[in-house]
Amino acid sequence: MEDGRLSTKNRTSVMIFGQQYTISGTETTEHIEKVAAIVDEKMSEISSKHMHLDKDEVAVLTAVNTVNDYLKLRKQYDLLEKQFKRLKD
Amino acid sequence: MEDGRLSTKNRTSVMIFGQQYTISGTETTEHIEKVAAIVDEKMSEISSKHMHLDKDEVAVLTAVNTVNDYLKLRKQYDLLEKQFKRLKD
Repeated sequence: MEDGRLSTKNRTSVMIFGQQYTISGTETTEHIEKVAAIVDEKMSEISSKHMHLDKDEVAVLTAVNTVNDYLKLRKQYDLLEKQFKRLKD
Repeated sequence: MEDGRLSTKNRTSVMIFGQQYTISGTETTEHIEKVAAIVDEKMSEISSKHMHLDKDEVAVLTAVNTVNDYLKLRKQYDLLEKQFKRLKD
């Protein structure tokens, strides 16, 4: 998924933190809207906890939190995959 | 992990896209630096592909991409967990 203004893929217009973005990708409109809603919610949550932050700082910290969640899940996935292979063999 | 200026947890100062952030959490400094490096790389990648974007737009689209990656991994994890349970029973 990426900013879609240069792309010919499926384009979806979403509102995130009060601003409109055009997102394109092979994902469905429903999926893109779901992702945008999650980002919007996470940004609002961080912003309400830390009122002094600028919009770009809020977005960066949202990305930081999500990458952290991703790495945690990746670790769990790798562990589960090992257990799965052991059980299969 | 969250913006740490109000927290008493382990605090790490990182540079992301030319700006300093203080991140706190129970994670190690090494882990926080790794997360920050991933976000910095993703922002640089999006920014170099779309030169017309402002910093806050780059940050929001980075957050969108990371949430999308997370949801994809979550789907894979749930699938693997189902297969694992089926094999175990």
